[in-house]
Amino acid sequence: MTYDVSAIIASDAFHKAQNTLRDTHDLFVDQIIELTEIPAPPFKEDRKAKAYAQMFSDLGLEDLHLDEIGNVLGVRRGRGNGQMIAVAAHLDTVFPEGTDCTVRREGTKLFAPGVGDDTRGLAAVLAFIRALDAAGIETEQDFLFIGDVGEEGLGDLRGIRHVFTEGKYRDQIAGFITIDGLEPQEVTTVAIGSLRYRVTFTGPGGHSLSNFGRVNPAYALGTLLTGMASFDVPDTPRTAFCASTFGGGTSVNAIPEQVWAEIDLRSEDQGELEKLDAALHALAEQATVRENGRADTSDGAITAKITQIGNRPAGSTASDSKIVQASLAALAHFGFAQTTGASSTDANIPMSLGIPAICLGSGGTGGGAHTLDEWIDVEAEQSLRGLYVGLATLLGTAGAANV
Amino acid sequence: MTYDVSAIIASDAFHKAQNTLRDTHDLFVDQIIELTEIPAPPFKEDRKAKAYAQMFSDLGLEDLHLDEIGNVLGVRRGRGNGQMIAVAAHLDTVFPEGTDCTVRREGTKLFAPGVGDDTRGLAAVLAFIRALDAAGIETEQDFLFIGDVGEEGLGDLRGIRHVFTEGKYRDQIAGFITIDGLEPQEVTTVAIGSLRYRVTFTGPGGHSLSNFGRVNPAYALGTLLTGMASFDVPDTPRTAFCASTFGGGTSVNAIPEQVWAEIDLRSEDQGELEKLDAALHALAEQATVRENGRADTSDGAITAKITQIGNRPAGSTASDSKIVQASLAALAHFGFAQTTGASSTDANIPMSLGIPAICLGSGGTGGGAHTLDEWIDVEAEQSLRGLYVGLATLLGTAGAANV
Repeated sequence: MTYDVSAIIASDAFHKAQNTLRDTHDLFVDQIIELTEIPAPPFKEDRKAKAYAQMFSDLGLEDLHLDEIGNVLGVRRGRGNGQMIAVAAHLDTVFPEGTDCTVRREGTKLFAPGVGDDTRGLAAVLAFIRALDAAGIETEQDFLFIGDVGEEGLGDLRGIRHVFTEGKYRDQIAGFITIDGLEPQEVTTVAIGSLRYRVTFTGPGGHSLSNFGRVNPAYALGTLLTGMASFDVPDTPRTAFCASTFGGGTSVNAIPEQVWAEIDLRSEDQGELEKLDAALHALAEQATVRENGRADTSDGAITAKITQIGNRPAGSTASDSKIVQASLAALAHFGFAQTTGASSTDANIPMSLGIPAICLGSGGTGGGAHTLDEWIDVEAEQSLRGLYVGLATLLGTAGAANV
Repeated sequence: MTYDVSAIIASDAFHKAQNTLRDTHDLFVDQIIELTEIPAPPFKEDRKAKAYAQMFSDLGLEDLHLDEIGNVLGVRRGRGNGQMIAVAAHLDTVFPEGTDCTVRREGTKLFAPGVGDDTRGLAAVLAFIRALDAAGIETEQDFLFIGDVGEEGLGDLRGIRHVFTEGKYRDQIAGFITIDGLEPQEVTTVAIGSLRYRVTFTGPGGHSLSNFGRVNPAYALGTLLTGMASFDVPDTPRTAFCASTFGGGTSVNAIPEQVWAEIDLRSEDQGELEKLDAALHALAEQATVRENGRADTSDGAITAKITQIGNRPAGSTASDSKIVQASLAALAHFGFAQTTGASSTDANIPMSLGIPAICLGSGGTGGGAHTLDEWIDVEAEQSLRGLYVGLATLLGTAGAANV
């Protein structure tokens, strides 16, 4: 039994697993195409989830089920020592209903919305299971494989959030690897947290002339915006804020009844994020008080409503943790650079809970993620090199019991 | 020959004219209905203009024509002494194309968009001409009757502006009466001027996290809004400002490339309006400089674009002018209160040029102007009392040559 990645990679069993990945690479590509062509718009992942569950079932995973929120889960038993290692890829894409998801193939390139982000990840997880089974590799810890919903945008990580807060295995997961992105050389070990709000200021409105002197929510918004411009945030840990979208008012000759702004706050550090969050809330209050003090409130005062539209917690995984060390060792072995970086992925949730987690690319190259021109290159050598890294990382994390 | 309103009202000829107004009140109401049911959306008054020109033609007006901008004009010759008195009502309504303008009648009430504002005014002008003709009244000064375009909203008074700046009679008009509104007891003698702008701040945009540190046009907008909140304007002359409508940005995770606000500035006094205007322009410049000083401009700086979307000059007519005195005397005679007030109407244009002008209601009662529920009550006694005031005001201004 070993957690030593070099020893694992040198074993006959791992070679057998690599052979399987190589021999079934066409199937891997076919499964990317099959899954890509099943649309999975935000909040509408159910068709893709059912197809993915069938693929888990065909691979013989245990306790296969769709949970309350739509995630697909299945267990591959190891020796059951210690807690489980969860391995996930996300089902959802950023593309709205009605988007043509037909894959166009040119040589080794596949073109389609969602083909890389994260359908290649979903297919990679299937390939890992297939290779483990073919090589008869038994792991020390059990694997919980997940096809999750709601990673993108307003999905707000709801699939993985559910797994860690409500899911049946929530207290049994000791490590988390999300297979997301392509080239694997930058391992995500820092989760950039974000809080997103719609701030709406409401007042009595009225005619621009005959009701002049009344409070105007636009001036409260002004105070909010100028206050934000004075926010002082550190470069390290990386922290950012943005007043992003705006609207309100009905006519040039009317005091608006309502104006709103959407605001994005981000930080690598949950403490900095919370400081920024508190500053924004205080500022909205101050903006309201200021406008209500400036002008006439006898027909109604300005109120501020702050609606959260996004919440991704910050966090990090220690560089010396087993999961990070396993991934870096695997990258080194297969000739990749070894760097760590910060991003906002499904790994935010476990990292914020102190559970070691990384996000790892599945290999190959590509471009145009989140655009209709998205593409990946499945040229076998590059593609397989990434899959080897992933498989070695899984084994280095969960332990190989019989190699 | 007299300009004395009491003498005019006491004359047999005026009684005859009153009888005509009374005897043809049903026709007056029919013409309100007929004209109301011809839609006249902003910038699309042509159908109503043609119908109104036909009505002018049926009344035998001279030099009947539609001018370059779509106004209907016709002359009723008097003795030709002195310059002309222009009498106008506006053809346009605030309602967009496709609005159902069918009139619903319940007793003496008529319901339809535009029925009061200003279709009753258009029909009142026809009634005045009919009554003058039936009574054989000859006036000292010629009348220029006008059905004008573009009074409402973005029309920006373009019809009457054209009459006074480009029109063939522009140098011959000594007084101007616009028949607009219902109850006539408040005579508009002060023109509230307005300047309306769309202020757009533009910058390089970018990703809210990876381009954090770049200039954001939202913060320039913030400076503009907080600066406006500090504008100090006098109560007298009445002056007002309003930040009214807003928009901009594309996504919560993007620095907006563009944000905009529409702004309304108003004053009874052209000097105060110009001061406010200069302050707004300076503030937009200051907002731009401030944001460009605060953040990174290496990928592009914030620029401000100020587009004028409305310009109605301020002005006033002296209370002791003949036109105001005529209207107040007529109101007194027919049992109305006599007040003067400030508004923004077609009379802004001549007032701003120093030409005596008023806006006078045509009588009757009503409500819901600028809403789909607009209505007027054409109950004959109230309705006629208002028409008598109007006719007496016209004669007291232009002079009655043969009464």
